[in-house]
Amino acid sequence: MTVSQIDEEVAKLLQLKAQLGGEDGKHVFVLKTAKGTRDYNPKQMAIREKVFNTIIGCFKRHGAETIDTPVFELKETLTGKYGEDSKLIYDLKDQGGELLSLRYDLTVPFARYLAMNKITNIKRYHIAKVYRRDNPAMTRGRYREFYQCDFDIAGQYDPMIPDAECLKIVYEILSELDLGDFRIKVNDRRILDGMFAMCGVPDEKFRTICSTVDKLDKASWEDVKNEMVKEKGLSEGVADQIGEYVSMQGGMDLAERLLQDPKLSQSKQACAGLADMKQLFSYLQLFQVTDKVSVLFDLSLARGLDYYTGVIYEAVLSQMIQAPVVAEQNGALPGDEASVSVGSVAGGGRYDGLVGMFDPKGKKVPCVGVSIGIERIFSIMEQKAELLAEKVRTTETQVLVASAQKNLLEERLKLTTELWNAGIKAEVLYKKNPKLLTQLQHCEETGIPLVAILGEQELKDGVVKLRKVASREEVDVPREELVEELKRRTSKLP
Amino acid sequence: MTVSQIDEEVAKLLQLKAQLGGEDGKHVFVLKTAKGTRDYNPKQMAIREKVFNTIIGCFKRHGAETIDTPVFELKETLTGKYGEDSKLIYDLKDQGGELLSLRYDLTVPFARYLAMNKITNIKRYHIAKVYRRDNPAMTRGRYREFYQCDFDIAGQYDPMIPDAECLKIVYEILSELDLGDFRIKVNDRRILDGMFAMCGVPDEKFRTICSTVDKLDKASWEDVKNEMVKEKGLSEGVADQIGEYVSMQGGMDLAERLLQDPKLSQSKQACAGLADMKQLFSYLQLFQVTDKVSVLFDLSLARGLDYYTGVIYEAVLSQMIQAPVVAEQNGALPGDEASVSVGSVAGGGRYDGLVGMFDPKGKKVPCVGVSIGIERIFSIMEQKAELLAEKVRTTETQVLVASAQKNLLEERLKLTTELWNAGIKAEVLYKKNPKLLTQLQHCEETGIPLVAILGEQELKDGVVKLRKVASREEVDVPREELVEELKRRTSKLP
Repeated sequence: MTVSQIDEEVAKLLQLKAQLGGEDGKHVFVLKTAKGTRDYNPKQMAIREKVFNTIIGCFKRHGAETIDTPVFELKETLTGKYGEDSKLIYDLKDQGGELLSLRYDLTVPFARYLAMNKITNIKRYHIAKVYRRDNPAMTRGRYREFYQCDFDIAGQYDPMIPDAECLKIVYEILSELDLGDFRIKVNDRRILDGMFAMCGVPDEKFRTICSTVDKLDKASWEDVKNEMVKEKGLSEGVADQIGEYVSMQGGMDLAERLLQDPKLSQSKQACAGLADMKQLFSYLQLFQVTDKVSVLFDLSLARGLDYYTGVIYEAVLSQMIQAPVVAEQNGALPGDEASVSVGSVAGGGRYDGLVGMFDPKGKKVPCVGVSIGIERIFSIMEQKAELLAEKVRTTETQVLVASAQKNLLEERLKLTTELWNAGIKAEVLYKKNPKLLTQLQHCEETGIPLVAILGEQELKDGVVKLRKVASREEVDVPREELVEELKRRTSKLP
Repeated sequence: MTVSQIDEEVAKLLQLKAQLGGEDGKHVFVLKTAKGTRDYNPKQMAIREKVFNTIIGCFKRHGAETIDTPVFELKETLTGKYGEDSKLIYDLKDQGGELLSLRYDLTVPFARYLAMNKITNIKRYHIAKVYRRDNPAMTRGRYREFYQCDFDIAGQYDPMIPDAECLKIVYEILSELDLGDFRIKVNDRRILDGMFAMCGVPDEKFRTICSTVDKLDKASWEDVKNEMVKEKGLSEGVADQIGEYVSMQGGMDLAERLLQDPKLSQSKQACAGLADMKQLFSYLQLFQVTDKVSVLFDLSLARGLDYYTGVIYEAVLSQMIQAPVVAEQNGALPGDEASVSVGSVAGGGRYDGLVGMFDPKGKKVPCVGVSIGIERIFSIMEQKAELLAEKVRTTETQVLVASAQKNLLEERLKLTTELWNAGIKAEVLYKKNPKLLTQLQHCEETGIPLVAILGEQELKDGVVKLRKVASREEVDVPREELVEELKRRTSKLP
């Protein structure tokens, strides 16, 4: 036997086993997608396409190019970039060759791309799926495979201008998608680090304490303090000092006040962060971001990832969403997800050190970016479409080529070919002799607005009967004018 | 220490190790993408977007919906579907939980989707990346991560109509992409199986002999015969009989002749296949596929995959492509890939049994489909763009907001905001006081056609100086008319 024959044999046996079932002889093959993942059906795809078009339109309006990277990276490329979240990375099996992992976000591959190609200047977007072995909560739009829509600006520029544009982009996209009110929270890693230092947190604990502070949007201060003291070994006094700061929220005025704060003003880092925060708010005003949206300087915002070095931000929808009843039917605890905030739908910040981690000489490329968390937005849009009982079309077919009589398949195929060749979106049923009613029903079900009907008489007269599905109006159109007539009619369609 | 602290500690140490280098203290971190994969830079993405638009446009013209499935499936979903190729499947590491594999194609996930959702009727396209641990040949466009563009029709219909539409789609796409002449080869698994049976191949060897025949497009008959006899255990006499058939090529006439063939006509299966082949050719004529393209009934076409049950086909470009010199510089042997046929760019066929393999009751859903192998097409388009030294724009920016004087950052940001809010694609340099020359150079480099220039005088007069980059013509436009003027000018742009 050759190796390939053995492989084939093994595959056949395994298949047989799957069909026969497991040890007990029952069929155990489970028909499902992997945990935490889902298929998109045509309706969901139609909604997804609409959302993507809005997002890509915004990215292009801001002059961004796009790139793509492989779904997996060398494992070591991802190592040491995500702090405590590293345990959520999917690894590939060692099948000989390189050790690989599925990408955890689009930011690290972007930094690897910049370093590898020695690019010091780019404004790019990247829309692709990322992978996290997290606890899924699918009704809230939290999956193990999910899309990220990233916009990043790399390059050495004057402070806070690209940072402000990232927030402008979040503002434009969330406004355009019409998701109701939202808030944008901003903070700065330098302010957090300065605060930690002044409160007496040892240097080597900055990142891990940062991770703990990051839990404040879901956990109470008591729980967070508990973790700081019991798990991370801070003294109660230090934790309480941190507690005072992280309860502060405000606008440009808060930044000004904190610049006078007896403790914070001692930290060079914190002062740099606070001065930039003021600058950021002034640019946001010029970009008209502050007009209708509350932008909040929030000292409890920390962001989980290790690589941020400056300003950080997060956008949160104000609206609560109703989880569909289906969730409960599928075994979720009643009340568990019945009405929850979808939480953050966009986040990002400045990461000036990440590219340098990949460069052999450690050469830095300052970067700032934002990631739109599209799955939660899909969830909301889907539920909206369901609530409004919107009829979502999943095809764009403009006309069905039909016939009322038998033995006209050839004529139907010929006419369909004419239409396709002229760029008209056309369908024809794959039956030799379909009933007219069946053909009209297909139009009703899929939203095809027009039917081109062929019969013996029409063929003799050199015409086609054009029928409007909605109104049932029919008119004979000369065959040679049909394409023009269809173009005229469909250009008026939505 | 908590588990998460340990994880963090390990990650830090590993990162440190990577920075310090391996055992010998040197830096060993390799800055690369995984073997057989590549990044797409903005120029490649611009070409990719163009190709996708053509393909999606065609799929939509034929009334297709789209779906999406996760990048990984349960391992057992893929088991036993790919014959000898199963060894090329990427598995994920067992990190607790389900055993997963990266998808190998889009067809098996599609069949799983149909069975899982009990769908018996759909015309769908799916464009996504698939994964094969194959030997990469990147200059020929053969990667381990690559796109497939699939179009499939599921449902019980009259014979050969959907099959013919799949070939019409291949014809339309390859014609529209302007890739030069191409041929379409067709055959039928039933004809192959009937032929094997009549030549004396034992039933259980049909699939493996089919895999061997499939190598005829790359290997000589001698090599293929050798494999049949020495590795797969056929007698020389049986192999020679097969050899006679698989050298046959023709059109509808060949199908007619073989229906009279003393051996083949004894096989019910072969006759059914041959009758359908005739029917297929007649529909292809109605679809005008045979007008400019040679469609060849080729008995040596076998296709590697196990799941085909009826008609199978493949499209091959006639053109030879010049591999770029870069290939040799990167260590490829001179002459090795200097001028090679890119081979098959589309393939598919009928697979009536695949969905039934997933259905608990074995309920069948007949399917036929085609997959466009887009990477090879990208390779050709890229080389074409390079040869013609085409200037590919990677952004769509219509206007740069610039200034000739200092201290006008705020005014530039304000005007840019006005333009963004009006839907104009606009950029502004992220510098407080950029030189006008720098700003104009940015336009030249990235192909931005217009510049809106602000100065003290313009601000006083309530105008903006609008400059055409190509001709250097300048004209003052009243500020309140700028958006309209830009829309007027950019609607004329390509």
